[in-house]
Amino acid sequence: MTAQTRPVDHVIAAAREFLGERVTLNTAIREQHARGEDTTIPVLPDAVIFAETTEEVSQVVALCHRHGVPVIAFGAGTSLEGHVTPVRAGISLDLSRMNAIIDVSQDDMDCLIEPGVTRHQLNDHLRDQGLFFPVDPGSHCTIGGMCATRASGTNAVRYGTIRENVMGLEVVLADGRVINTGSRTRKAANGYDLTRLMIGSEGTLGIITKIRLRLHGIPEATSAAVVQFPEMRGCVESVIQVMQLGIPVARIELLDEVQMAACIAYSKLEALDPLPTLFLEFHGTEAGVREQAEAVKEIVTEMGGLGFAWAADQETRNKLWTARHNAYYAAIATGPNLRGVTTDVCVPISRLADAILGAKEDILASGLSAPLVGHVGDGNFHTVILVDQGDPTALDRAWALDRQIVARGLSLGGTCSGEHGVGMGKAEFLEQEHGMEALAVMRGIKNALDPKGILNPGKIFRN
Amino acid sequence: MTAQTRPVDHVIAAAREFLGERVTLNTAIREQHARGEDTTIPVLPDAVIFAETTEEVSQVVALCHRHGVPVIAFGAGTSLEGHVTPVRAGISLDLSRMNAIIDVSQDDMDCLIEPGVTRHQLNDHLRDQGLFFPVDPGSHCTIGGMCATRASGTNAVRYGTIRENVMGLEVVLADGRVINTGSRTRKAANGYDLTRLMIGSEGTLGIITKIRLRLHGIPEATSAAVVQFPEMRGCVESVIQVMQLGIPVARIELLDEVQMAACIAYSKLEALDPLPTLFLEFHGTEAGVREQAEAVKEIVTEMGGLGFAWAADQETRNKLWTARHNAYYAAIATGPNLRGVTTDVCVPISRLADAILGAKEDILASGLSAPLVGHVGDGNFHTVILVDQGDPTALDRAWALDRQIVARGLSLGGTCSGEHGVGMGKAEFLEQEHGMEALAVMRGIKNALDPKGILNPGKIFRN
Repeated sequence: MTAQTRPVDHVIAAAREFLGERVTLNTAIREQHARGEDTTIPVLPDAVIFAETTEEVSQVVALCHRHGVPVIAFGAGTSLEGHVTPVRAGISLDLSRMNAIIDVSQDDMDCLIEPGVTRHQLNDHLRDQGLFFPVDPGSHCTIGGMCATRASGTNAVRYGTIRENVMGLEVVLADGRVINTGSRTRKAANGYDLTRLMIGSEGTLGIITKIRLRLHGIPEATSAAVVQFPEMRGCVESVIQVMQLGIPVARIELLDEVQMAACIAYSKLEALDPLPTLFLEFHGTEAGVREQAEAVKEIVTEMGGLGFAWAADQETRNKLWTARHNAYYAAIATGPNLRGVTTDVCVPISRLADAILGAKEDILASGLSAPLVGHVGDGNFHTVILVDQGDPTALDRAWALDRQIVARGLSLGGTCSGEHGVGMGKAEFLEQEHGMEALAVMRGIKNALDPKGILNPGKIFRN
Repeated sequence: MTAQTRPVDHVIAAAREFLGERVTLNTAIREQHARGEDTTIPVLPDAVIFAETTEEVSQVVALCHRHGVPVIAFGAGTSLEGHVTPVRAGISLDLSRMNAIIDVSQDDMDCLIEPGVTRHQLNDHLRDQGLFFPVDPGSHCTIGGMCATRASGTNAVRYGTIRENVMGLEVVLADGRVINTGSRTRKAANGYDLTRLMIGSEGTLGIITKIRLRLHGIPEATSAAVVQFPEMRGCVESVIQVMQLGIPVARIELLDEVQMAACIAYSKLEALDPLPTLFLEFHGTEAGVREQAEAVKEIVTEMGGLGFAWAADQETRNKLWTARHNAYYAAIATGPNLRGVTTDVCVPISRLADAILGAKEDILASGLSAPLVGHVGDGNFHTVILVDQGDPTALDRAWALDRQIVARGLSLGGTCSGEHGVGMGKAEFLEQEHGMEALAVMRGIKNALDPKGILNPGKIFRN
């Protein structure tokens, strides 16, 4: 080694000794690891390392620790908030090959998986066993990434977010030590909740290498419904009523007229109109599902809903939910060369109409296009602010609109992120949301667990 | 002040300046704060201070911090694991007068309360608003204490534990700073989950001064049922089947023949026999409740259950559940001068029969009396090992049996505590359950948040 050898070169050389070709400096691969699906400025990692075992993760992290080199866990790269952008370069540690489903227990309705398993992969595996995993963000993300960002999705209104569906974790700490958190029981009062501390820590406190997930029985009966509204207020007010009456809907998703137009084009939903729309799903017994659907139908009809179309057959349901999950991709497909700046405001349910109608006013005033879609049963909605990558001013205007919509959400008692996480994109709001002292506690925990600051630096905290 | 002045004397003198008589050295009051309802050796605090506001808690904790004096939050004193025993003396900070229900939102189904509010007080307050708070340990505990110990109760199988029902907290830190955690939204991905970190931290990371709770709508229909079994195996196997079939019971509680005999005497349940028994409750729509009850009836009948007695009227239901909640008091009333050593094992549901039948064998072999009762839908059960306080060897024999039952639970993949917490009584098992490295992470967090170790010393960690 020469006098110019950087710390990362020591890591690369040492890792090559036991990982060989799985340590790569290939530019194309580094470019794939330069950011997620967000609009952050891409930064090339110095190297990408593909780990296949916990032991390998531990060894690589220990090397990074010794040499003070940043290490960023990378799954499917679907982050919308800059989580995987290696802002200070270093090692992008790719865990996508750690995708084994280690065991499934039908009796205890849980499973142990590696972090690179995707939700699609897991549900395909579970289907024959009468079980399913409900947490379903709108991308082909890995479950490790979902844990790291405290993800949720369309089923959270009934089944909870990833937070409620993880029983325990194996985590590699900043110095390479490996811990197990949690318990295989449905509940436990056995010391500090390290599982919940790791969930949502965005790779800044440890790297998740195994996950024990809670599973759910496939319901006896499932049916879906679609209802469209002439105007947005009735659509949102319907959601508020459904939730306040405690109807246990499995899914209740709102798409505004702009998002519907995009989905109709992208997913060929020709039977539907570009109007404010609710997609609903009901889980339960045959009688229970009918009862829920009737109760919802009564509410939406009173609120001006135009019909209430059933979709009991699986094919129609699949088409509907695939369209919903592809909403983001539909949005950015509405023009050439588009990328999205995504807001993720979540508010108390009573403030949902103010938040959504206000956001739509903000969008209108901005002159930008921003389809709106949301997990409205949880008070959570997204606007995908479309940015023409050829327009040099578009990104700044999009971020200005993003800030405006988030500020409105915060002023209504909401949070800057319901499910996408903080990353780089929402860090500026954390102080306002939690206060300086709470943020200082978070920093204190970060310093205690990662004193050298090598784990995903530049995320959650602004400096 | 003389040369003999102890650090705590400075705290007492300074606190008297702004709290006057609410700082007390009265022996009777100090004795009431010398332990909970457990069998730890009572230790008198140097003083008891009754706080009435967050500001007062902050000032007292800041004084303790300055002078390095232990401070132990005290609610209703119902801990079963030594949580409130001031093992290194210091200040017992009594929060029971901080019992205001600050606001209730029907629209958002949440409320903001002070920590001294009891669950009975809250539910009395909510009744007219069609809402209820489901977490119900078997004592007149405060909700602050429930948060600190990660409590649950009979409804957790359906509504979750306190962990799932707290949205945010106000917490006084070890140096007197005040933070707010969490969010008023149903979900959030907005930084480290300080709320879940504080829940179950047993007063060792901060003192909870306000709680934002999630509430639930009172169900349209409720019915209860009782079924008795000639032997324990059929009783436990019924529970396992109900859970594995995903029947959404609101409560499913098991009482063994010894506990039933105690409850029949204490709560005058003359219509029932001293046999293994399940108490059940169903919540939902009229049709849904009927459907659930029919499904359960089919299972228990097949498992040898003797009849299936309905209790749809509220008076009978109240009598039943009051008897269940008083199970601990019924157990210690079976003889004069008794106190209980309580196990709190929780196992994966598939191992519940092994855990319960094994515990009963252990009890039989010990020659001790130990009624068994449990939140079996969660895999959680208690044995109340009865200790004659006049018998000098009884306590040691009880602890030996306790260790045996816990060790069996751990060997079945379980936890030493489902809901009572670690305190002093279960600290010896934490290392075995989590491993040295995870425990070191917990200690690292403790040191980061409470570097002087003044917050409830001697709890969770053994030294």
